[in-house]
Amino acid sequence: MAFTALVTLLLLIQYLAFSMLVGRERLRHGVHAPAVTGHPDFERAYRVQMNTLEQLILVIPAMWLTYLLFFLPIVAPLLGAAFFVGRLLYRNAYVKDPQDRRLGMAIGMLSIIALLLCALWGTIINL
Amino acid sequence: MAFTALVTLLLLIQYLAFSMLVGRERLRHGVHAPAVTGHPDFERAYRVQMNTLEQLILVIPAMWLTYLLFFLPIVAPLLGAAFFVGRLLYRNAYVKDPQDRRLGMAIGMLSIIALLLCALWGTIINL
Amino acid sequence: MAFTALVTLLLLIQYLAFSMLVGRERLRHGVHAPAVTGHPDFERAYRVQMNTLEQLILVIPAMWLTYLLFFLPIVAPLLGAAFFVGRLLYRNAYVKDPQDRRLGMAIGMLSIIALLLCALWGTIINL
Repeated sequence: MAFTALVTLLLLIQYLAFSMLVGRERLRHGVHAPAVTGHPDFERAYRVQMNTLEQLILVIPAMWLTYLLFFLPIVAPLLGAAFFVGRLLYRNAYVKDPQDRRLGMAIGMLSIIALLLCALWGTIINL
Repeated sequence: MAFTALVTLLLLIQYLAFSMLVGRERLRHGVHAPAVTGHPDFERAYRVQMNTLEQLILVIPAMWLTYLLFFLPIVAPLLGAAFFVGRLLYRNAYVKDPQDRRLGMAIGMLSIIALLLCALWGTIINL
Repeated sequence: MAFTALVTLLLLIQYLAFSMLVGRERLRHGVHAPAVTGHPDFERAYRVQMNTLEQLILVIPAMWLTYLLFFLPIVAPLLGAAFFVGRLLYRNAYVKDPQDRRLGMAIGMLSIIALLLCALWGTIINL
């Protein structure tokens, strides 16, 4: 269980870092709350954070269901770690040019689909 | 537990489908990242995804706490399945005309409130 | 476990209340879906809800991992309750003037960081 917990925490800390980088762009470019537009750097950092949030709601439950129900629990933290790497590539590309986000996005999406399939397999076997 | 896991996965897969439909509208109407406005079809698909995300953060924990603590655990996946149906109606109505979203939204909201009450009942009994 | 469940439910109910207040501002100021801009009162209420969502994805997993793995499980609901209070202050300040959100935001952020550190400590000890 500790490995799945560790990957969960790495994903949460990565997301917290992405959030803090949004706050930095907000200050740097004088984008005053509640605005969420106003400067491309801010908008890119904000979309990276939001897109990561949109995917964490999938990754965290799917990873834990895979850990609990799939016959090879170690697959859960491994796929979670692949998602983590995909997010790093995604952010690094996106803040330079949003059109280059494809590779990181694809790694993240494949990790999510693999986790959902493993969790579904484990669930159906246990019905 | 497998029924609650199954409904969780159905909700995650439904949400993933909603997300992919946003990507399709982004491509179809040439809405370039990081923009999240630009064409009504894209904006509607995006709001459906975001609203579903806003509610999944309630449904998933409330469903699992109901499963773990309420005296009738089967209520958890049943209410989760009602939320799933509400979301289907919500999306189908919203992409045609956002003003027609009320029925699907009401079913989803009632499922959420029922899950929160069952979880609260179970928690207070166990204090 | 019941204390951590109770704080989780309080956070979910608080977030549901924030969401309902967004719907009220939407009606009151005639902001028609899918728009998420149009009147400052609506935009502030909406940003409070979104910011709370952005943080709940951190708080809920970090609180449960702290409860499960940290040697003093009672720390989990206590820090979760501190986050709850921080969110109340955050919302009350934000809807009057977004520039005054700092105190509530700081309490919430410190609670999140403390939960992540406790969960990380517990996880590393258990590796």
